[in-house]
Amino acid sequence: MTKQELFENIKRKESFLCVGLDTDVNKIPEFLFDESEDPVFEFNKAIIDATASYCVAYKPNTAFYESMGLTGWEVMERTVDYIRENYPDQFIIADAKRGDIGNTSAMYARTFLGNMNFDAVTVAPYMGEDSVNPFLTYEDKWVILLALTSNKGAFDFQFMKDEITGKRLFEKVLQTSLNWGTDNNMMYVVGATKAEMLTDIRAIVPEHFLLVPGVGAQGGSLAEVAKYGLNKTCSLLVNSSRQIIYASSDKDFAVKATEEAAKVQLEMSEILKNAGII
Amino acid sequence: MTKQELFENIKRKESFLCVGLDTDVNKIPEFLFDESEDPVFEFNKAIIDATASYCVAYKPNTAFYESMGLTGWEVMERTVDYIRENYPDQFIIADAKRGDIGNTSAMYARTFLGNMNFDAVTVAPYMGEDSVNPFLTYEDKWVILLALTSNKGAFDFQFMKDEITGKRLFEKVLQTSLNWGTDNNMMYVVGATKAEMLTDIRAIVPEHFLLVPGVGAQGGSLAEVAKYGLNKTCSLLVNSSRQIIYASSDKDFAVKATEEAAKVQLEMSEILKNAGII
Repeated sequence: MTKQELFENIKRKESFLCVGLDTDVNKIPEFLFDESEDPVFEFNKAIIDATASYCVAYKPNTAFYESMGLTGWEVMERTVDYIRENYPDQFIIADAKRGDIGNTSAMYARTFLGNMNFDAVTVAPYMGEDSVNPFLTYEDKWVILLALTSNKGAFDFQFMKDEITGKRLFEKVLQTSLNWGTDNNMMYVVGATKAEMLTDIRAIVPEHFLLVPGVGAQGGSLAEVAKYGLNKTCSLLVNSSRQIIYASSDKDFAVKATEEAAKVQLEMSEILKNAGII
Repeated sequence: MTKQELFENIKRKESFLCVGLDTDVNKIPEFLFDESEDPVFEFNKAIIDATASYCVAYKPNTAFYESMGLTGWEVMERTVDYIRENYPDQFIIADAKRGDIGNTSAMYARTFLGNMNFDAVTVAPYMGEDSVNPFLTYEDKWVILLALTSNKGAFDFQFMKDEITGKRLFEKVLQTSLNWGTDNNMMYVVGATKAEMLTDIRAIVPEHFLLVPGVGAQGGSLAEVAKYGLNKTCSLLVNSSRQIIYASSDKDFAVKATEEAAKVQLEMSEILKNAGII
């Protein structure tokens, strides 16, 4: 998917919501195990059907599928296929946080952007340019590079200041990676729990899409994220996982997911209108 | 496996070789596809049988298996099982370079250290303490944290100097992570292509095991690594992948793998003797 197509979807759906499919076999409603041979996929399918009108992207978190072994990996593949077939306007992100030496990153790129046909994959920056470049060779596909994450551990290294420039590591990651990709094939992860940092981030990457996790269960505020992160073509994807997909653990889980997604979409619609984007 | 057990294996086998199972479906001998329904596993099995006497560890690189989809994931599982059953003294590393927020890292830890029963998993440090801790909760299992990698991109961020301390990022990773684990559950990745840096690294982590990739195809020297990295209990695992597993692409691939592994083991034996370790 191109940047322009993604922006058109955002305008049409009045939403920049990404639903995180962090599907945990221990958290999905118990009745699904009685009713289906394939409860994890049934859960994903129901969540996708319940939320597709209100979001522009889905983000399966590979860890949750890998922890289920072969079955999980296969459910992840079928989930991507299901979205592709039924909701072709959705942007699908593999939240995989990979990154290795070049020949190995090429394998990860083939896995997620080639074989599995995700639109994007999250990548860790620690190993530098040649660990990221192999992901940038797929047409209309995206790298989403970790810049400033939403967790407490972000403070361990990401705020370390460079002796020469005074810039923090996350700023150096943004600045340096501008030479690797463009705003048409690279986005950045910026945690919502550090929304005020978005001003500094936008100073370096004014045009790039930012994928913002941490709204909802992790405590970040959508209004704050929009205030500091929105640009004239939106260029935000705000992720919510647990708040939507585990809104209820009962028979009404899909209805509750719809309600939660609709609530976020309504707030996003207001934000987009107030900003004059729609 | 405990640190003491690993050291005993090193002394007994006079080797600190780790064989990297970077099994690429496009690089394994073609005749295997004619002779077997299961060529990738057959390749691994033959390489393991050919090298087990000369090494103390195996390191499947998850990227290569993931790129083969479900089949690949299943071959990785069977490969670990095969080593466990036939060579129980081998230390098995998932070279996965994972790392995410706490609840997600817990899933990766369950995948590799729980379900699949690897002894260790490589982890990227960018997201800090809470992204690493979940891997440290498994008894006699290990985190191998990226410190200084063997690739060119290592220079992009890992050498950034801290404004206050003057320490480089890889040194800060070493220093900070000393508070997370011990030399009984944490090792570090240090690339052989930067062997002279091992002096600075040993100043911070004198006792920890170091996993050293980059010898062989990537150009690092075993003698240099040993010169700067060896301590009185060895505490080195030196990895070689391509040089051993792709020593020949013909029918004699296993024999050639044996020869290459034996050559490295002989050099390691000399190094251990000269250091008075055996």
